[in-house]
Amino acid sequence: MKDTKIVIKKQIKLKDPVLVVGLPGIGSVGKLVAEHLKREFKAEKIAVMYSPHFPHQVVMLKNGGVRLVGNRFYLIRKKGAKNDIVLLTGETQAVTTEGQYEVNGAIVDFFKNKLGGKFIYTLGGYNLGRNVTDKPRVFGNVSGKDVMRRFKNGNIVFGKSRGMIWGSAGLIIAFARFQGISGICLMGETSFLDVDASAAKSVLMVLAKNLGLEINTENLDKIIERTAQAIKDLENQAKLGMPGEPGSSDQRPSYIR
Amino acid sequence: MKDTKIVIKKQIKLKDPVLVVGLPGIGSVGKLVAEHLKREFKAEKIAVMYSPHFPHQVVMLKNGGVRLVGNRFYLIRKKGAKNDIVLLTGETQAVTTEGQYEVNGAIVDFFKNKLGGKFIYTLGGYNLGRNVTDKPRVFGNVSGKDVMRRFKNGNIVFGKSRGMIWGSAGLIIAFARFQGISGICLMGETSFLDVDASAAKSVLMVLAKNLGLEINTENLDKIIERTAQAIKDLENQAKLGMPGEPGSSDQRPSYIR
Amino acid sequence: MKDTKIVIKKQIKLKDPVLVVGLPGIGSVGKLVAEHLKREFKAEKIAVMYSPHFPHQVVMLKNGGVRLVGNRFYLIRKKGAKNDIVLLTGETQAVTTEGQYEVNGAIVDFFKNKLGGKFIYTLGGYNLGRNVTDKPRVFGNVSGKDVMRRFKNGNIVFGKSRGMIWGSAGLIIAFARFQGISGICLMGETSFLDVDASAAKSVLMVLAKNLGLEINTENLDKIIERTAQAIKDLENQAKLGMPGEPGSSDQRPSYIR
Amino acid sequence: MKDTKIVIKKQIKLKDPVLVVGLPGIGSVGKLVAEHLKREFKAEKIAVMYSPHFPHQVVMLKNGGVRLVGNRFYLIRKKGAKNDIVLLTGETQAVTTEGQYEVNGAIVDFFKNKLGGKFIYTLGGYNLGRNVTDKPRVFGNVSGKDVMRRFKNGNIVFGKSRGMIWGSAGLIIAFARFQGISGICLMGETSFLDVDASAAKSVLMVLAKNLGLEINTENLDKIIERTAQAIKDLENQAKLGMPGEPGSSDQRPSYIR
Repeated sequence: MKDTKIVIKKQIKLKDPVLVVGLPGIGSVGKLVAEHLKREFKAEKIAVMYSPHFPHQVVMLKNGGVRLVGNRFYLIRKKGAKNDIVLLTGETQAVTTEGQYEVNGAIVDFFKNKLGGKFIYTLGGYNLGRNVTDKPRVFGNVSGKDVMRRFKNGNIVFGKSRGMIWGSAGLIIAFARFQGISGICLMGETSFLDVDASAAKSVLMVLAKNLGLEINTENLDKIIERTAQAIKDLENQAKLGMPGEPGSSDQRPSYIR
Repeated sequence: MKDTKIVIKKQIKLKDPVLVVGLPGIGSVGKLVAEHLKREFKAEKIAVMYSPHFPHQVVMLKNGGVRLVGNRFYLIRKKGAKNDIVLLTGETQAVTTEGQYEVNGAIVDFFKNKLGGKFIYTLGGYNLGRNVTDKPRVFGNVSGKDVMRRFKNGNIVFGKSRGMIWGSAGLIIAFARFQGISGICLMGETSFLDVDASAAKSVLMVLAKNLGLEINTENLDKIIERTAQAIKDLENQAKLGMPGEPGSSDQRPSYIR
Repeated sequence: MKDTKIVIKKQIKLKDPVLVVGLPGIGSVGKLVAEHLKREFKAEKIAVMYSPHFPHQVVMLKNGGVRLVGNRFYLIRKKGAKNDIVLLTGETQAVTTEGQYEVNGAIVDFFKNKLGGKFIYTLGGYNLGRNVTDKPRVFGNVSGKDVMRRFKNGNIVFGKSRGMIWGSAGLIIAFARFQGISGICLMGETSFLDVDASAAKSVLMVLAKNLGLEINTENLDKIIERTAQAIKDLENQAKLGMPGEPGSSDQRPSYIR
Repeated sequence: MKDTKIVIKKQIKLKDPVLVVGLPGIGSVGKLVAEHLKREFKAEKIAVMYSPHFPHQVVMLKNGGVRLVGNRFYLIRKKGAKNDIVLLTGETQAVTTEGQYEVNGAIVDFFKNKLGGKFIYTLGGYNLGRNVTDKPRVFGNVSGKDVMRRFKNGNIVFGKSRGMIWGSAGLIIAFARFQGISGICLMGETSFLDVDASAAKSVLMVLAKNLGLEINTENLDKIIERTAQAIKDLENQAKLGMPGEPGSSDQRPSYIR
C-alpha cells in the first residue's frame, strides 16, 4: 500500500451532509464524543480509510479476527433532519508530518468531492496547563468569520485559545478553507488526563445542540465514563506485550502527547 | 535501491503452497520457529527479499563474506504432502511505518501472484504483561471466520488476545484478506524475554500438527534452546562495536520492543 | 498536500529585489529581526509558503480563525531606493532533512525565477558556547569572495565562525550559489537564550545599514524586548496543552536545538 | 534537491581505477585514513556528491564561505602505477535508512558506470567491546571468495568479525557484488574512542601495501594524531552553538554511534 485510500462500503445518496471528526488526540476528547454518538445513534459504517502513514498495526478483534488500523466513516440519519451527519472516527492518526498532510487532505477531498459535503466539525481537547475545576468550557476556532457568526450564541468561547492545534483537528479546518468549504474546531477544556470524560461531555452537548441531535441525558455521565473506561482499557491492552506499542516513549504518535 | 524487491533464486513449480512467516519480533518467537523448521527439514532457499526500508546493514558471514540484510523464502517439500511449505524468515523487518506497508504488501503479492499460494501462517509472541508459569498457550487471530472453524480443535485460543499486533505478523494477515486469500497469526504466550524458546516450542507444536510435519521431539528442548542461544549471540554481536546498532534506544526497530 | 507550494497573494512588479530570510532558529535571532522590520516598515504580504514538510499544525488566531503553519513573503518598498526588499518569515522550518532540501530549494527557486531577485540575506544566531558579555558581534558567511569584499567595512566578522549552519540560514546560501545568485548569512553572537534580543539588535543594525533602512533607534531596546517577549509567549502557548508540542524533547525541530 | 547527485568537477580519463571509501563512522577510522592519503598524496578533487538525505547543513569555511555538506571524490595518480586511485571522503553519510540505500547505490553506480572502475575498498572500525591493548588488528569482509584469496597474505583477519556493518562501509560492498564488481571492507580494531588514530594507522598500512603506495613513516604517528585532533576539533565546533548539532542524542546519525 503506497497511498492513503478510502473504500466505500455502502453507496448512499446523502442529504447535504456535515462531517464530524473525532479522532484520537489530547484527552481523547474527540474520540470519546464520536464513539458516544456512534453508539447512541446506531451509526452505520459507510466507508473505511487506510493509509501507509498509519501505524503498522492490526487490531485484534473479540471475534478472533483482525482489522487493519484505520478510521471509519459512519452515517447518522435522522428523519426530517436537514442534514445527514457523517462521523469519522477510528484508532489513529498519521504518524509523520508528511503523512498528516496527505491523510487530512484526503479526508477533506473525499468529503467534498465524493460525499458532496460543505461543513466540517472537528473535535479535540484544549489543555490550559492547569486543572479544570468548573464545568469545562468549549473553545472554538473556525475557518472564517461567517462561521463564527453562525455559532455566536452556542456556548462556544472564540478568540481565547492560543498556540497550535496539532493533527487532524486543525489541518482539516485549514484544508477545508483551501477547498472553499467551512468548518469549526470544537475543543473541550482539559488538563492532563489521557481520557477526559468531563471535557467530552461539554463538547458533546455543544455539538448535539448545533446538529439538532437530542442526547439522552439520563445516565449520560455514567455512559460516557464507561466509554472512557473502554478506551483506557484498549490503550492498556495496546501497551501490553505488543512490540512497539504506542505507549513507549519514542513511538507515541505526536497527536497523543 | 528505491523499492522492495524479491529475487527468485530457484524457479520451482510449487504444489498449492502455504506460506509460513517467522520474522524477528516479540520474544523472537516467530524467528525461532522458522529457524527450527528450516534446519530440521533442510529447507531450500528459493528467493531473497531486499528493501531500502530495511536497516542499512550488511551481515558479516563466517566465511568472510557479507550479505545485505534481508529476508529469504525457503521451500520445505514433503513427499506425498498436499501442500508445499514456503518459509519466510531473515534478519529484519522494515524500519518505518511506510516501509512496513510496502514490504508486507510485497510479500503477500509475491506469494499470491508469483507462487500461486492461498494460505498464510504468521508467527509471533503475545505478551500478557505477566510471567508465564505453565506451558505457554498459543493465541490465534484469523483473516475470517472460515479459518477459525478450520482450526477449532487445534489447541489455539481464539478471541482472547487483545490490543494490537505490530509489523509483519499482523499486516500480512490483513493484506491477505484484502487480496482474497486466507491466513492465521499464531502467537505464543510470552513475557519479557528477548528470546523465548518455551513460547516458540508451543507455537512449533501447533504449527507442525497443522502442516502435517512430524517434529523430532527427541532433544527438542535442547535444540530449540541452542537456536535461541544462537539468536541471542547474533544480537549481542550486532550490538558490539557496530555503529547504530539495533540495541541503542532510539534505533531499535519498533517490532522488537 | 504532497509538495511545497508558494501561493502569490499580490502580484507586484518588483524593483531588483533582495531577499531577507529570518526564520525560527538559534536564539530566535533571525525571526526577531524579520518581525521587527515587518512591523517598523509595515511590510505587505505578497506570498505564502506551505509544505507537507512543515509541522502538522495550525495556528490559533486572535480573531478566532486558524492559519496553516507556514512562512510568508512580505514587501518593504522605500521610495527612491534601488532595491525592493522581500522579507521571508513565519513560524517554522521543515522537520526532516529531505524536507529542508526541498523547502529551501523552493525558496531560492521562487526568489530567482518568479521574483527576479539576485541577492539574499539569511539571518541567524551563532553560539560560541560561552556567555556573551560585550556587544554581540555579527559573523558573516558568504556565497563567494566578491560578496565578502562588498561587505568588508560593515562590522561583520568573516572567517572566524566554525562548524555547521543548520537549516534555512545555511542551505539557502549554498543553493543560491548553485543557482548563480549571491548571498550572505549574518549571525548574531549568542549564548544559550531561546530568544536573544541583544543578538538580534546587533544583526538588525548591520542589516539595516546595508539595506539603506533607517531604523528608529528611540526605544529600540524596549521594542525589540517586547517582540522577544511576544515570541516567548507564543512558544509557551504552543507548549500549553496542545499535543505533540514542539517543546517536547523528541518533537523539537532540529533547527531550534 | 530531490535526488542524490554527483557533479563531475574535472573530466579525467582514469586508468583502471580502484575506489577507496573513507567516510565518517565508528572511531572515525575510515575518514582518518582517507584524510591522511588525501594530504600525503595531494589528491585532486574530481567530483562532488550532494544528497537531500545528508544532514541539512552547510560547513563554515575558513575563507568565510560556505560549503553544502557532502562528500568528494579525489584522484591519486602515481606514475607507472597499474591503477589510478579514487578516494571518496567527506563530512557525512545519509541520515535515514532509505537515504543510505539511495546514496550508496549512487556511489557504486557512479564508480562502475562513469569511472569504469572494478574494485572497491571501504574502510571502517570494528569495536569488539573491549579495550585494544596490542597493535590493532585489521578485519576484512569481502564481496566474494576470489577477493579473499587475493588478500590472503596481507595481515587481514578474515571470518572472525561478527554482527552487522552499518552504513556505507557495508552497503557499498553488497551493492558492488550486485553490480558484478568486487570489493573488500577493511576494519581497524577499535574500542570506544570517537577518533582512533591507532586503528587508523593499522588500516592505513594494510591498505597502502595493497595499493602499492609508499607511506612516509617518519613522524607518521604524530601526523595521524594531528589529523585525528583536527577531526575532533571540527566535531567540537560542530557541536558549538549550532542548532541541531550531530552531538545531540537524537540527532546523531546512526553510522556514528
